[in-house]
Amino acid sequence: MEVKANVEDFQDIKKKLDQIGAEKIKKEHQKDFYFNAPHKDFGETDEALRIREIPEDDKKRIILTYKGAKLDNVSKTRKEIEVDVLDSKNTALILENLGFKNVATVKKDRDIYYYGDFIITLDTVYDVGTFVEIETDANEDEDITESLNKIFDIYKMLGIEEGFERRSYLELMGIV
Amino acid sequence: MEVKANVEDFQDIKKKLDQIGAEKIKKEHQKDFYFNAPHKDFGETDEALRIREIPEDDKKRIILTYKGAKLDNVSKTRKEIEVDVLDSKNTALILENLGFKNVATVKKDRDIYYYGDFIITLDTVYDVGTFVEIETDANEDEDITESLNKIFDIYKMLGIEEGFERRSYLELMGIV
Repeated sequence: MEVKANVEDFQDIKKKLDQIGAEKIKKEHQKDFYFNAPHKDFGETDEALRIREIPEDDKKRIILTYKGAKLDNVSKTRKEIEVDVLDSKNTALILENLGFKNVATVKKDRDIYYYGDFIITLDTVYDVGTFVEIETDANEDEDITESLNKIFDIYKMLGIEEGFERRSYLELMGIV
Repeated sequence: MEVKANVEDFQDIKKKLDQIGAEKIKKEHQKDFYFNAPHKDFGETDEALRIREIPEDDKKRIILTYKGAKLDNVSKTRKEIEVDVLDSKNTALILENLGFKNVATVKKDRDIYYYGDFIITLDTVYDVGTFVEIETDANEDEDITESLNKIFDIYKMLGIEEGFERRSYLELMGIV
């Protein structure tokens, strides 16, 4: 489950992440290519198909991901299946030949922190804005409300009490 | 372009491959998973989508391949796009979630030889039979008839003058 908030900038938040002892794991630059299907509109079915490029040292990690519709509206939990592929261009070409269309490209810089069982991400999304996302693995046996409360506790510790955003970056870009 | 012939066995053919100086490159065991599309019937459009698993030493090479319709009926040339993927199961799961269905699995043992610009393959296809396939890169500038004549010359050298088969292994299995 994940919750996202739109913020002005990251200056104070980075200090507070330090103070609460969150551990900075890595910085990533991601380039996401989203595809729509030939036989249904993913904007309507709430699914997504994405090729993500993440430069790592000299090479790129490339991941093909399918996201199912949100399973519930509070936690935004989705089925997510991913596979690493060796070539971004040919993966896109295969999808295009199958009738899928590249409908959006999202570029973002991402600082990733760990804080206990939570992943805190500072996202600078090109042409969209700056966002803090807090995520934890949804466990079916756990109380979703409890996890959600913990997420909002962390937001509070970071000084974030407004700007919560339910829409995806694609929705914010006006694409779906 | 490629031409395939159904043969009784490989005993004489292997001897003749030796005599003409064909170079044995490798032996492969391939497992192919074919998928059909949710929005059209690849049997009708003459396209194909395949996950191929090739065990190599301790690990597996896995390739996702799209094949377009045959561009002409003589050479059987097709658009072919492939990408290596790291995980067969998740690739299949993504395709299935996108609405594609695994309609056939083809297992074969394959001995691969090089002979000049030609690739000669001895295929033992489980539940189908034994086949010799001769393939050469189709070059748009080249005379297709000439390449085709060369292929049939090689068949003659191998003692194969009948059993030529236009149908794919999938068609021979009665699947498409």
